[in-house]
Amino acid sequence: MEAGNPTACLLVIGNEVLSGRTQDANIRFLAVKLGERGIPLREVRVIPDIAATIIKTVNETRAMFDYVFTTGGIGPTHDDLTSECVAAAFGVPWEPHPEAWSRMERSYKPGEFNAARQRMATMPRGATLIDNALSVAPGFQIGNVYVMAGVPRVMQSMFEWLAPRLQGGPRIEQRAVHAVGLPEGVIAEGLGAIQARYPQLDLGSYPFYRPGGNGVALVAKGTDVAAAEAAIAEVTAMITGFGKAPIPGEPEG
Amino acid sequence: MEAGNPTACLLVIGNEVLSGRTQDANIRFLAVKLGERGIPLREVRVIPDIAATIIKTVNETRAMFDYVFTTGGIGPTHDDLTSECVAAAFGVPWEPHPEAWSRMERSYKPGEFNAARQRMATMPRGATLIDNALSVAPGFQIGNVYVMAGVPRVMQSMFEWLAPRLQGGPRIEQRAVHAVGLPEGVIAEGLGAIQARYPQLDLGSYPFYRPGGNGVALVAKGTDVAAAEAAIAEVTAMITGFGKAPIPGEPEG
Repeated sequence: MEAGNPTACLLVIGNEVLSGRTQDANIRFLAVKLGERGIPLREVRVIPDIAATIIKTVNETRAMFDYVFTTGGIGPTHDDLTSECVAAAFGVPWEPHPEAWSRMERSYKPGEFNAARQRMATMPRGATLIDNALSVAPGFQIGNVYVMAGVPRVMQSMFEWLAPRLQGGPRIEQRAVHAVGLPEGVIAEGLGAIQARYPQLDLGSYPFYRPGGNGVALVAKGTDVAAAEAAIAEVTAMITGFGKAPIPGEPEG
Repeated sequence: MEAGNPTACLLVIGNEVLSGRTQDANIRFLAVKLGERGIPLREVRVIPDIAATIIKTVNETRAMFDYVFTTGGIGPTHDDLTSECVAAAFGVPWEPHPEAWSRMERSYKPGEFNAARQRMATMPRGATLIDNALSVAPGFQIGNVYVMAGVPRVMQSMFEWLAPRLQGGPRIEQRAVHAVGLPEGVIAEGLGAIQARYPQLDLGSYPFYRPGGNGVALVAKGTDVAAAEAAIAEVTAMITGFGKAPIPGEPEG
């Protein structure tokens, strides 16, 4: 693992992922983007729109990780509980945020900034805003917790604004090689020996099943690029030793 | 929520989802299938291939939920730690499972049932097997923990075998209506009032953004089908009251 890097946890808040209504699209986006910032994603929790669960999970995870990102539950409807629950988790009042309030008030016609919409400008005391290019409603940060929208394109816009403001570590790089017709059970012993020689890396083994042939992808991941390249060179030699053709990179598709 | 139903938690075990290498495909499948069995999925945790994390998470969640399902980490390579970690979580020996061992031994040519493959027939003492139609390597159950493969088609085959053997509750049903051109902020107040009249349901509000027009989908979920239909009828009337055309069901695509 990347011992020197700050760590992140993602909380996906919303019944729609747990019911299977919605295929989550935020985990992978944030996993990749956080890796690029040198902030490895270490855990994801998908939790329902239940206040006690949200409060408990925010408090557990903000103590365990350097960064906690949340997606979902900051809209105007009764099932949007994230913002008030984050206030409760921090033990601070949930109150109108002057800047969010004035921005939103200006963007609606007179009379349309109703009670439901006013909830979106109500935040934990001490929160700072997270802007986005698509919507007037901002996310916010308090402590090490970053509260973002659940709609993927709004979340992505918030994260693009946020990313350069996050203190990251060395970028996490991946190198890979794959081979067709080589079962994991054949290479497992040699692969374990290579992993043991590169404790600073995560060496992953991922079988794939494709019309063009089944096989396995081997991925070395870490901040030490030279080590990742050396480990993949050893894996490549092992594949050749088993009489198969190593193919650089990940399998396509 | 479905107060009388048994509850489930899913642990997605593997660095490949946390690094963004792999788009998870197991959460949604299990969410839908468990809902059909009347076992609502209440939490998902995606965790890395780190023994201490797996052991701690298995113990936390098996105390919190009626069922814990795991996917991933039961292959033959060094990064497959789930099985031995589940044994450690239960405080039982991790030892050859006689039936799994003999099945796997028979399926390989002499000499090919090597140490790495033998690990796949090594399980917590007291485990019972979970079969599948695609692979000779089984999953297993111990206590309320169900350990399955991470490869989606193998996991799905295991779950299809398992599903009729799970004690479920009343099936969780969904009814829905949607409308184009109706912002959440307009309907939030009325929607909250409808939710308050149907406390046995989860009434969810999900904005969508489509080339054919933005809008919102309203979904009533629960075991009380008559209540779900009545709630959606009230939502439908509300949409009409705002001068928009209610469209039964979820938006397509």
